[in-house]
Formats: sequence, structure tokens, C-alpha cells
Amino acid sequence: MATPSMHLNLFIMGCGHHRAAWRHPDSAAERMGDIGYYEALARTAERGKFDAVFFADGHAAGNVAGGPLWYLEPLTALAAMARATERIGLISTVSSTFYTPFHAARMLASLDHISAGRMGWNLVTSMFDAEARNHNYTAMPPHAERYARAEEFANTVLALWDSWADDALRFDRNGMFADPDRVRPINHHGEHFLVDGPLNVPRPPQGRPVLFQAGASDQGRDLAARHAEAIYAVAYDLESAQDYYRDIQARVAAAGRPPVPIMPGLVTYVGATEEEAKARQRELDELLPTQDSLNQLSQFIGQDCSDWELDAPVPELPPLEDFTGPKGRYATILRIIECERPTLRQLLGRLAAGGGHCTMVGTPESIADEMQRWVEQGGADGFNLMPPSLPSSIEDFAEQVVPVLQKRGLFRHDYAERTLRGHLGLERPGA
Amino acid sequence: MATPSMHLNLFIMGCGHHRAAWRHPDSAAERMGDIGYYEALARTAERGKFDAVFFADGHAAGNVAGGPLWYLEPLTALAAMARATERIGLISTVSSTFYTPFHAARMLASLDHISAGRMGWNLVTSMFDAEARNHNYTAMPPHAERYARAEEFANTVLALWDSWADDALRFDRNGMFADPDRVRPINHHGEHFLVDGPLNVPRPPQGRPVLFQAGASDQGRDLAARHAEAIYAVAYDLESAQDYYRDIQARVAAAGRPPVPIMPGLVTYVGATEEEAKARQRELDELLPTQDSLNQLSQFIGQDCSDWELDAPVPELPPLEDFTGPKGRYATILRIIECERPTLRQLLGRLAAGGGHCTMVGTPESIADEMQRWVEQGGADGFNLMPPSLPSSIEDFAEQVVPVLQKRGLFRHDYAERTLRGHLGLERPGA
Repeated sequence: MATPSMHLNLFIMGCGHHRAAWRHPDSAAERMGDIGYYEALARTAERGKFDAVFFADGHAAGNVAGGPLWYLEPLTALAAMARATERIGLISTVSSTFYTPFHAARMLASLDHISAGRMGWNLVTSMFDAEARNHNYTAMPPHAERYARAEEFANTVLALWDSWADDALRFDRNGMFADPDRVRPINHHGEHFLVDGPLNVPRPPQGRPVLFQAGASDQGRDLAARHAEAIYAVAYDLESAQDYYRDIQARVAAAGRPPVPIMPGLVTYVGATEEEAKARQRELDELLPTQDSLNQLSQFIGQDCSDWELDAPVPELPPLEDFTGPKGRYATILRIIECERPTLRQLLGRLAAGGGHCTMVGTPESIADEMQRWVEQGGADGFNLMPPSLPSSIEDFAEQVVPVLQKRGLFRHDYAERTLRGHLGLERPGA
Repeated sequence: MATPSMHLNLFIMGCGHHRAAWRHPDSAAERMGDIGYYEALARTAERGKFDAVFFADGHAAGNVAGGPLWYLEPLTALAAMARATERIGLISTVSSTFYTPFHAARMLASLDHISAGRMGWNLVTSMFDAEARNHNYTAMPPHAERYARAEEFANTVLALWDSWADDALRFDRNGMFADPDRVRPINHHGEHFLVDGPLNVPRPPQGRPVLFQAGASDQGRDLAARHAEAIYAVAYDLESAQDYYRDIQARVAAAGRPPVPIMPGLVTYVGATEEEAKARQRELDELLPTQDSLNQLSQFIGQDCSDWELDAPVPELPPLEDFTGPKGRYATILRIIECERPTLRQLLGRLAAGGGHCTMVGTPESIADEMQRWVEQGGADGFNLMPPSLPSSIEDFAEQVVPVLQKRGLFRHDYAERTLRGHLGLERPGA
């Protein structure tokens, strides 16, 4: 291939990203605690030559009536999934607000050994008070404080991964197991953390597991620009994807770094015909209890909308700068309202799967067209696929869309590399 | 079997518990980061019908020249090992000083789902300043403070495991995924922790993963008496094992609980003849770098022994009351000298493999005799095997000693249960 492959990432979430997916009669609702279910998803993505599978994470149970949210813990689940696969990358979210850098560095390094160099870390600062109140905080620390901690956290984790030189291990049976001069303390005594190091895990196969970020706020984008090696984005349409792409790559360049692969979230409904694809979407939408969706929307917009009129236009919302919650998704909602002037019911339908990420509904060819347009017109280097229903939507995508992308020379026919870093075209960093 | 099976546990540590094991030409020194090595050990123990495999843990790199200490992180390694085995229990050490209860409860619950009910937790408070200084402490908190935190930690973890009722999950496609009335917050606002709960993992298959402890100090024994469902012990000989056993079971009874299985650590060298077994021990002892061991012994006994004759008996040492350094290890050294009359080389070897734990050297029959004596005379309910060399010592034990124990009706011929709780004869707790 002349151009590098686009990047495809499977974002695993319960029975699928559509909130009603578990309600389908054929759903795997009963298998959410069965690691075999997740292993099979990873193998499906690997058959589709995806770069990686990815778990988001949260530290509060949430609305347990509304569907499976969290179940298995990502780091432990990915350890098992690493052994059920051979090539595909494995990315775990780890919160800088709730972990210590030593735990994070150690577990991710251990997983990089277990997976032989296929591990990635999605750095988040977490958002909800309910999560904070499971980890000794009375409420979530303010945004600026979380990001200051995240910055120091990332630097500390990177230093711990670098604390063992690549050539530290000697295995010299008449001498040293490892050379103490090549295993150095980091003596980090910062504002948030005291970590002497060195790590108690030798240097990971990738040098450093790949650092992902999904910066949406100004501070988040700057953190991503300084540290992220790949970025998850939220983009409702190509135009907002392009805006985000330009802004992030400018910040990355300002930080003196080469361009970073950016992958917007993408919900796809694939059918042999446009009508079949739409029928699939409708089938899931019809499983959706209205109350559930209203609760979710209330969370997204930071105000109670449970008594709004379902078939009236969505009322005016406060401008982005007045919103104190997570800004990325809120901006998307404002954009949908501005562009489509939807009724509340229509907006709920839009948000039911993927919470306002881009949705493509159509034939394998029409979806490939659209993905190609995003990549060629500077909106994306690939996509973070958020299948509305699992496993069916990802099987559809891998079996029907991937071959079209491959035929067009847009996506790899097989893995050329053995590490996540390799799939993403990233250099292995020196210690 | 009329009497219940004794319990056997494989304590996995690097290339073996003998500090020089990695120096053997055939050792797996190069495979310490290869999860396949640990999976194979777990499968060997499973072929031997062991109750469980077990990882200790530490949070500092230690002396990296002297041999592999830590490498893979236990929780991530055990997730993979769970998928390489079907019946054997999997026990991870998790420190109450360095984790938050929510992380611990969540990861262990996740692993209990991944392993379908085979997970155990060895609760420790950790010991070393070098570990504390990787987790935001300037030094290890005092003993009493660590144990107060551990007590609250254990109670919080147990409450989180109980926060989902056994019947909370409904999978009702026209109603609730889980019943919010059966998923309750714990609202723990204690001295050390604020944890509202509920956990974000449904109730583990075992109800609660099995809680192990290894209380040695007075406070540690009391913590074990209140919480431990199984106990690891350190006993040099049957007499000290009996003392410990009586003391712990009395404390357990005083806490109003049924007797708890106690498993002392055990180092074994097995041979077809007594001489062959001794030769195996000697082979490992001779791999010890003499100068390092002599320096260490000099420190332990408070006098320079670098010019002592290696193959002559150890000279008389001053009595315990005249020794001004740390008394615990010195007492063990005096006891070994008194009971075994070792040469200096033999003493160095004894200290290099298992420290003050019991060592049995002999034929399968003589070792089975001795194990039987410990179990029948109230010193143990089973053993935590600390193979001096891995995988060879555990292969020897599983293939040669286990059949003798089975023939005598002292150990199970096959698993009768599917959970760790089942192997240990423990009831599944209600929520």
C-alpha cells in the first residue's frame, strides 16, 4: 500500500453502544460476566485486522436497571483477552484521578509483557462525583486540579517505564540477573505524587505502552498534544471532525511533536441495502424505553429534561461556555440541535447509540465511501468503532465493510507488525 | 474419603524459592516475563489436584542483581492463568496499605467472574519503606496504623462484594437489567476510607473471593482470627507449627468462628533416595555466590564470618539474649544450627530457600510421612509449597509425593468441586 492503512479500533461496551441493545431477544445480556464473550469479540476484531480493542471505564455502578454498564474490570479482562489473540492491540482506560502512578505503570507494563507488546493506555481524569465517592473523595476534584494531576501522573508513569533500560536484564548465571546501574530510581517528589521507583517490572516490550487520550476541553486538548500518541475524538460530522483534527494537530506541532493519529468514534448500521440498514437501526431504536433516554440526556446536558414535551422541538440550551460538565458531548448536542432542529424524540434517537458520535447507516460501499471521505478530507486517520449491537454489528462491519476498505487500498489486508505501536506506525521510544 | 483432603497450595516465586535457582544452567531465568511460564506452572499444579496457586507481592524492585523478585503483576498474571486452567484456585496478594478498597474489591470480583469462582485474596499490610515510597508515603506507616487500616479495608471490601444481592441481575428485556433495590450503596465513611458503593461488578460467583491471611504478630493474628478463611503460616518445625495452630484456632474460636484451614510454608527436595534428594539440595546450594551469602550472614549474626570454613560445621554462636541486632532471624539461625548441625554452606543454603520455613528433604514416602505427621498431630491442615526450583521441584512433588498422599487417603484423587471455596470446604456466604 502506498498510503498507510487507516486505523480501526473496536470500542467494546456491554451488549453494544446502543442503550437498548441488551433488550434484543438474541442479545448476550446473560454473558456480561463471561470472559469468553469478550475474547470472542477480540477475535472477531482480529479477524478483521483491527488495530486494537478498547475498554472505557468508570468507577460507579450507575443505573443498573437500564442495562449493563461496567462488569468485568478492564485490566483483568484484557489480560485474558491477550491470551485469546495474537496480533491485535489491547487498550485499557486508566484514570489518573483514582489510581496511583505506580499501580498504573506496573499493571500496564505487566500487560505489555503478557501481550508481548500490544498494550495501550487511554488516560482519563474521570468525571462523576459518584465515582469520586468510591475512592475517598467527597466530590470530584475541579477540572483544573484533575488535569494538573493527570499531567504529573503521565510524566511519572512514563518515567517509571523508562526506569529499566532496555539492556538492564543480563541473566548472567555467574553474575547479575539485572544490572543495577541500568535500573534507576526516578525520585519523583512532585505536587501530587511521591514515587521513588524504579518500577518492579522490567521495561515493557514496546518500551512504553501506547498512550491514548481523548481531550475535548482546552486543557484536555493540551494534555493530549503534549502526551498522546493516538487520540479518540467525538465528531458529529466531517466538519466538526476537521475542526478538531486541525486544532489538535496544531497543538501537537506547537508541542514539537509529529502528527498524531486521530480516531473519531463511529456508529455503523450495515445492510445489503440502505433500507435493510435503516431497518436494523429502527429495530434497536424501538427497543428503547423513553424514560431511560431522558435520564441519559439529562446527564449529558446537566439539567433535568424529564418533563419536556417529547414531540416538540428541543428547547434552547445554554451556550457551551456556560456548561460546566464534559464539553465534547455537549458541543455535539448543541450542533445536532442547531443543524437538525430535532424534536426531543428525534434527539433521543440520535443519542441512543454512541451519545452523539457520528452515525453511518447504509451499505458496505456507502459506509466505506463516507469513511474514505473523512480520512481523505482531513477529518480522521481512522475510527473508533462503537457497534450499536454486539457481536452482530462488529461481525457485519468486519465481514462486509472491511473487505471494501481493503479493496480500495485504505486498510491493511493483514498485520505487518506484532505490536500495537507497529500497527499505529509509532516508533518504539528509547529509555 | 472419610477425612477431608489436606490442602496443597503452590506458592509461585520466580525461578523458585531458592535464591540461586535462577543461576542453574537449565533455569527459566529468561522467561520471567513470559506468561506461558506461569500458565504451565498452574497447569502442573492442577494436574497435581492442588487447591490453588498463589502469588506474594511487593511494590519495590529490590536487589535486581540478585535474581528475579517481582516481574509480572499478580492480578493481571492470574487473569491469564485463569484461562489456562479449569479447576485450580488462584490467589493474589493485595496490600491494604497501597490499594483503595474499591480497586481491590473490584479487581478481585472481576477475577472471580473471569475464573468462574476460583479467586482468593491474601490480605497483607506490606512492610518496607522502599514500597511506601512508591505510593506517596515518605515511609511505611507504623505497624498499628497499618493494621487499623487493614481492618477497615477488609470490612469495606467485604461490604462491596455484598453490595449486589445474588438475585440482583434480572436480564428482563422488557424491564430491568438489574434490580436497583437489590444493588445497595454501602455508605462507608470511616477513619481511613470514604466509599459509597455499590461495587460496579455484580456479586462474585463465590459470593466473596476467599480471604487468606498470614498473621504473625499479635495484631496480625487477631486480624486473621476475625477475617481469614484460610491462613498461611511460617513454622520451622512441627512443634512451632502446633504452637501457632493452637493459638490461631483459639483466637478464631474466641471470635465466634469455625476452625480455619492453616497451611504452613514448606520447602521440599524430593529424590528416589535420601541421597538423591540431598544431592538436589546441594546442587542448588552450590550455585549460591558465596561472598554475597557470607556478607548477608555476617549482617544477620552481627559478626564477620567471611573467613569461616565453608564445608566445616558452623561455629558456636552467642545465645539469643546476648545478640543486640534484629532477634527474629537470629533465633531461626540458632534453631537451625541446634537442630541440624549444618556446615556453613548448608546453613547458607537453608537461609537462601524459604528462610525460616520448614524444609523436608527425602524420598516421596519419607516426605509424605512427615506431612502426614504434621496434619495428624495438629500442626497443619495442608501446606503452602515453596518449591526451591521451578518448574522442576513442583513437577517432582506433583508426580512423586502427591500419589503417595493420595494412596494414603490424605489428599484428593480428583477435584470434587469447581470453586476455590469448594476445594477448601468453605461455605458460600450469603449477601
